[in-house]
Amino acid sequence: MVDVVLQYLADHKYAKVKETVREMHYADVAEVFESLEDPESAQLFFRLLPKDIAAEVFSYMEAEDQERVISSVSDRELRFILDELYLDDYVDLVEEMPANVVKRVLKNSSPESRKLINQYLQYPEDSAGSLMTNEYVYLKRGTTVNQALSVIRTTGVDKETINKCYVLDPQHHLEGVVTLRDIILADPDTVMADIMRTSVISVNTNDDQEEVAKMFYKYDMLAMPVVDNENRLVGIITIDDVVDVVQEEVTEDFEKMAGILPSEDTYLKTPVFTLFKSRILWLMVLMVSAMVSGALITHFESAISALPLLVSFIPMLMGTGGNSGSQSSTTIIRSMALDEVELSDFFRVWWKEVRVALLCGVALGAVNYARIAFQYHDGSIAMTVSLTLVVTVVVAKSLGCILPMLAKKLKLDPALMASPMLTTITDACSILVFFLFVTLFLGNRL
Amino acid sequence: MVDVVLQYLADHKYAKVKETVREMHYADVAEVFESLEDPESAQLFFRLLPKDIAAEVFSYMEAEDQERVISSVSDRELRFILDELYLDDYVDLVEEMPANVVKRVLKNSSPESRKLINQYLQYPEDSAGSLMTNEYVYLKRGTTVNQALSVIRTTGVDKETINKCYVLDPQHHLEGVVTLRDIILADPDTVMADIMRTSVISVNTNDDQEEVAKMFYKYDMLAMPVVDNENRLVGIITIDDVVDVVQEEVTEDFEKMAGILPSEDTYLKTPVFTLFKSRILWLMVLMVSAMVSGALITHFESAISALPLLVSFIPMLMGTGGNSGSQSSTTIIRSMALDEVELSDFFRVWWKEVRVALLCGVALGAVNYARIAFQYHDGSIAMTVSLTLVVTVVVAKSLGCILPMLAKKLKLDPALMASPMLTTITDACSILVFFLFVTLFLGNRL
Repeated sequence: MVDVVLQYLADHKYAKVKETVREMHYADVAEVFESLEDPESAQLFFRLLPKDIAAEVFSYMEAEDQERVISSVSDRELRFILDELYLDDYVDLVEEMPANVVKRVLKNSSPESRKLINQYLQYPEDSAGSLMTNEYVYLKRGTTVNQALSVIRTTGVDKETINKCYVLDPQHHLEGVVTLRDIILADPDTVMADIMRTSVISVNTNDDQEEVAKMFYKYDMLAMPVVDNENRLVGIITIDDVVDVVQEEVTEDFEKMAGILPSEDTYLKTPVFTLFKSRILWLMVLMVSAMVSGALITHFESAISALPLLVSFIPMLMGTGGNSGSQSSTTIIRSMALDEVELSDFFRVWWKEVRVALLCGVALGAVNYARIAFQYHDGSIAMTVSLTLVVTVVVAKSLGCILPMLAKKLKLDPALMASPMLTTITDACSILVFFLFVTLFLGNRL
Repeated sequence: MVDVVLQYLADHKYAKVKETVREMHYADVAEVFESLEDPESAQLFFRLLPKDIAAEVFSYMEAEDQERVISSVSDRELRFILDELYLDDYVDLVEEMPANVVKRVLKNSSPESRKLINQYLQYPEDSAGSLMTNEYVYLKRGTTVNQALSVIRTTGVDKETINKCYVLDPQHHLEGVVTLRDIILADPDTVMADIMRTSVISVNTNDDQEEVAKMFYKYDMLAMPVVDNENRLVGIITIDDVVDVVQEEVTEDFEKMAGILPSEDTYLKTPVFTLFKSRILWLMVLMVSAMVSGALITHFESAISALPLLVSFIPMLMGTGGNSGSQSSTTIIRSMALDEVELSDFFRVWWKEVRVALLCGVALGAVNYARIAFQYHDGSIAMTVSLTLVVTVVVAKSLGCILPMLAKKLKLDPALMASPMLTTITDACSILVFFLFVTLFLGNRL
């Protein structure tokens, strides 16, 4: 469909465009807009959209495209779009746009919206408060099913979700929740107090968004009420926003594990210099710490001069140590993120990793021993290398589970303890262990 | 709440237990059951649950706990639980239980359920068909709002979601979709044909579950209709199942990047030997390929004997190359997974990476040059190492974007091309480049 519309636009068949967009999902219409790189065609296309569709499509656009739209429409058109936005999208808009655009947006907002936005902007980033919207339907204990349906009919059309309605007391305290399904299926004269569930799962405005996401998954929810410290309902969070949060958090975890400072933008839109800045810090830190492993080697120059062959095992020992460690750290970090592993499991985890490491170490060591003994006919070098390998794998896998759990215990970020940092530590360990064993077992030949 | 119930159980206050679970979310009750490791207490607790709650709680349990329940209840109790299960949970159950348990489950299933389960089991794993359920409400074009509400009231209570109802023709072809919200808000005599949306977003039974997940996100959907090749509605997928799919896929990507064969179970439940098996393959492959880097070094033994200091730079060069490469590969793989980068962007991506790599390489090289020149007062070694670093970073970052994109082009898995494999390749490259430059610039001193 997207391609069809693009073709109509290229052929100047504007009536066809108007007709086709009516049949399309808003997300697809937003995609057409995004594909139009030339500002004039984009502006023309947006003006072709029927007014009500234009506003919906706007909410599906990425920040960059929204900015293009805002700077090209009249104040009157802008007001229409803003009026149709849900509060959470509105707040996102104000947060993401540059200052001059925000100024224009706020100028065209109603005083009421301005007040609400300012209030919502006060919640800390990454908190439940920053995700919520105020578009929910609320009812009272004594409301009957018939009355409830009429409340929903009158106010529901503006609400982001009416699948769940909240039952509040006069002071706005959250007393219960009732699903639209419960209302429809109940007798018309039943009151809410009789069909509402009183054990309501809710979150506090200050709760971290990651915790909120976990609650959504655990309880299979589509919308979650957000209350303040006095249990007064201040908003709801809907699952679509949670899904976005989870995607962002996962990307952040991937980035941290690869030693990249998290960035907000998509890859292709991030300028080269910004990418450079997000990557150079860790590369520099890790390079400096790798110099430590290097400096360690200089202590053993005499051993190397006497037996240059030893050097050829260093890449393999360092590499295997690094890989073994990151297998463990990745597993543990992911398990902690999914709440499958708790800090109290520390000894169980460590003991498990040690046993896995011994199995892996012995298997790798055996292959290595065979290879070296066969290729160089030198049993003592083979034994030295293989023993180093076993110890290195055990150390690497132990550190791979200890470091992330320690980080969590210290309220640091486990993902930061992952691959790159861990690799550097295990590198140093493997070199130390290697030359220790070289001195022990091959000392007479140095 | 979970702890409170556990305390009541420990104190044998069973009346209190029964009272408290009525107020709890089913997921939390399932958590209580999971905490009871002793089979007898678990069985006792499950029998304390009111029948209707027990069945719901069952659907929130993990496979292992479900197995414990099935093996401890009577046939009559089992039938009651099975009757209450949604079809998708039922199918999961049959897929995950060991053969003897499945036999007992099927023996206690109604012939109708058995037939449906067999039909659903035929869809390939990871396909849309394997995720769907048949619990949806369908209406006809000519159904009025009033009739629709009465259909929903009669059949809706059994359905997994009634937020969306599907409009089908007599041959079960999907003609449109209408939300419960649309129905509630419309005039009682309106017919479905007038309020339904005809441009329905749907998936085919054979579509891959990752694609399905992407559609859910793109269109902000809560439920997705699944059609067969003739556009007949065969089931729906609800967002809670999609969320699980995404979590699994992400875990799999993390595992692949760390060189671990994907496993199904949670970490603590996986036996040591299974963990060993999932990790040893890649460790072995990578160890063997690291031997290549080692073998390369043996070619330069004479250089090493003449200038043993050279060896001390190898860990830093290899480490920086590996880290630079995995920064790029992680970014690209994640961007491809989120559809932010397409194969057609190949040259844009590569050119961007080259520029980032040059910036990073020059910055790292400069620091290195200063360090070596200061510490060893040896300008030509400093230059050799720094130049190697620049080339290594450029090569590593190029490979870091080329390999995953190439993998995708060849319909292989990009994540498999990530960190460990890439590191091994860049390791070999950095050693080759290093000794090439050593021969070029330091040849007179060897």
